[in-house]
Amino acid sequence: MNGIDSADMGPWLSPDDLEFVRRKAPLVYVDIVPIRTDAKGNLVAVGMMLNGTDSGIMRAFPSGRVLYHERLRDALVRHIEKDLGPMALPQMPARTVPFTVGEYFPTPGEGWHDPRHHAVSLAFIIPMQGECNPGSDSLEFTWFTPGEARTATLQAELSEAHASLLRQALAALGHC
Amino acid sequence: MNGIDSADMGPWLSPDDLEFVRRKAPLVYVDIVPIRTDAKGNLVAVGMMLNGTDSGIMRAFPSGRVLYHERLRDALVRHIEKDLGPMALPQMPARTVPFTVGEYFPTPGEGWHDPRHHAVSLAFIIPMQGECNPGSDSLEFTWFTPGEARTATLQAELSEAHASLLRQALAALGHC
Amino acid sequence: MNGIDSADMGPWLSPDDLEFVRRKAPLVYVDIVPIRTDAKGNLVAVGMMLNGTDSGIMRAFPSGRVLYHERLRDALVRHIEKDLGPMALPQMPARTVPFTVGEYFPTPGEGWHDPRHHAVSLAFIIPMQGECNPGSDSLEFTWFTPGEARTATLQAELSEAHASLLRQALAALGHC
Amino acid sequence: MNGIDSADMGPWLSPDDLEFVRRKAPLVYVDIVPIRTDAKGNLVAVGMMLNGTDSGIMRAFPSGRVLYHERLRDALVRHIEKDLGPMALPQMPARTVPFTVGEYFPTPGEGWHDPRHHAVSLAFIIPMQGECNPGSDSLEFTWFTPGEARTATLQAELSEAHASLLRQALAALGHC
Repeated sequence: MNGIDSADMGPWLSPDDLEFVRRKAPLVYVDIVPIRTDAKGNLVAVGMMLNGTDSGIMRAFPSGRVLYHERLRDALVRHIEKDLGPMALPQMPARTVPFTVGEYFPTPGEGWHDPRHHAVSLAFIIPMQGECNPGSDSLEFTWFTPGEARTATLQAELSEAHASLLRQALAALGHC
Repeated sequence: MNGIDSADMGPWLSPDDLEFVRRKAPLVYVDIVPIRTDAKGNLVAVGMMLNGTDSGIMRAFPSGRVLYHERLRDALVRHIEKDLGPMALPQMPARTVPFTVGEYFPTPGEGWHDPRHHAVSLAFIIPMQGECNPGSDSLEFTWFTPGEARTATLQAELSEAHASLLRQALAALGHC
Repeated sequence: MNGIDSADMGPWLSPDDLEFVRRKAPLVYVDIVPIRTDAKGNLVAVGMMLNGTDSGIMRAFPSGRVLYHERLRDALVRHIEKDLGPMALPQMPARTVPFTVGEYFPTPGEGWHDPRHHAVSLAFIIPMQGECNPGSDSLEFTWFTPGEARTATLQAELSEAHASLLRQALAALGHC
Repeated sequence: MNGIDSADMGPWLSPDDLEFVRRKAPLVYVDIVPIRTDAKGNLVAVGMMLNGTDSGIMRAFPSGRVLYHERLRDALVRHIEKDLGPMALPQMPARTVPFTVGEYFPTPGEGWHDPRHHAVSLAFIIPMQGECNPGSDSLEFTWFTPGEARTATLQAELSEAHASLLRQALAALGHC
């Protein structure tokens, strides 16, 4: 495609433009804590991906950027589909009010750390009714019982930010 | 059954005991706003029952008492099943935090009015995935679009308390 | 007490009536987590009372019953004044939506335990701007840093229910 | 401006850089609904600014961008101080969870409209304990009773987005 420029890319940014934006303004992010519930809404399991990263193999929650002109709901659906596959059947929240707001900073020592950028992340706990399969970026996707999710051992496999997100989610669900 | 006394009735109260409790302490209630959402969680419709009451035919939301030793989740499931039938398939909330708390007082002019008692009601917006059929106490159950639900005409068919609950629910879902 | 009967006591119940109600229906309760914040709203300290109880000396959060015909706001103000004194200067919440709902059951092993009754408790995190002094039922009132509040040692001085309430509050405030 | 470049400006963006970012990614915003409450937390008044804009004189709530590397709390404090003066004495929320999330899009017809950009705005209802004075960008700052705030006349003086924000805030506070 001759003549393509960033304007043609719609909401996507070229790597250079993304780098530029990342040094200039906080990004809008969403973080998703996938859960399984029983018919009464009780927590049965919390799901996490296992990803290969530069710093080794880590567990993580689905997470990502909200694009230009993208609605929050569309961003949530897109990241769930990308990370958990098209059969996850999320029970999408009727309200787009996050259960917590994470602030990722590129400088260690303040709030949650993400060396790449400053991001303000709206976090949602979302029950999945279907089958979750790891997307192309993940090695596996695993469900853990609330008891397993509370262990320091499992939390050590998450980034500090996502370990904190997990503890906040467990607490919000009454499991702490 | 000879020798029955209220202790045998489990969580249910005899009419006399209920009358006594109602004059002595606030009751714990739940109010349920049934909704339909699309796959992204957008509001599609709000559901209401049509009931025959002493003051005529009125619309109402499923609502009722939490029994002694009954969990909130069990009370929600019980009232949904009683008022919307066994095929309503509610998406039960993972958190039992209400979106609003209603206070019904027996004296007109303060908060919401219920001549029968003082009740503190935890209100939940709950998407229904199945078929809702009116229970034995209702004439019909009807879904209304958000536009219909906002009209003063429809709201006039609800008690003042439930009309306020509807407006609060619409606002919480961004429809106001 | 000549001539007085429960009808004369307004919202208060005679011991016999309270016992009766407690065996028949869940009570409406409020739980209050008193905090100190700085000018930006950051958590500085969490406050707890030290009470002598039948099971020994325990720490606890202000907590108590909502009376017949009493508004939630009035119940919150009354319990704060009773437990923290008239100079606590609470920043009363503009919304009466609890940050969590506790369910106390008289039977051990389900939810939070309270041998006296089944209570549904609306829990609020309330910043205090003034001086908190222990009421007549308490030995002392103490502020703890978030770091101290997170320790298992301090949490062991609370009932299991209030230790869970503390952990949920810390998580809701991002301290976990 | 000799020798200055955007890197020197810290979190502030040059007009060109801001224009660039605005066409590439959603901005993080905060919206603030200033209120007065009584000692029990009941709503007494809602405050709005009167601003001269390109489209005429309009009322508006304090609102603005979160800067690169700025915490949400700092952004809230900065915008309150800029728009309501240094004596507003806000009761800063202990939790940074918004009561609603607004999505402003540059294209009319979807969500809230802002011709300048796509912004995701975290909205907070914040009681002010001090004196609010209009900042340099405003003609005046006025308190309105809940009854006045509910009128279509007053709401017509706000942008559609802020009129919706006002209605959502009134509903969240039980005034609808």
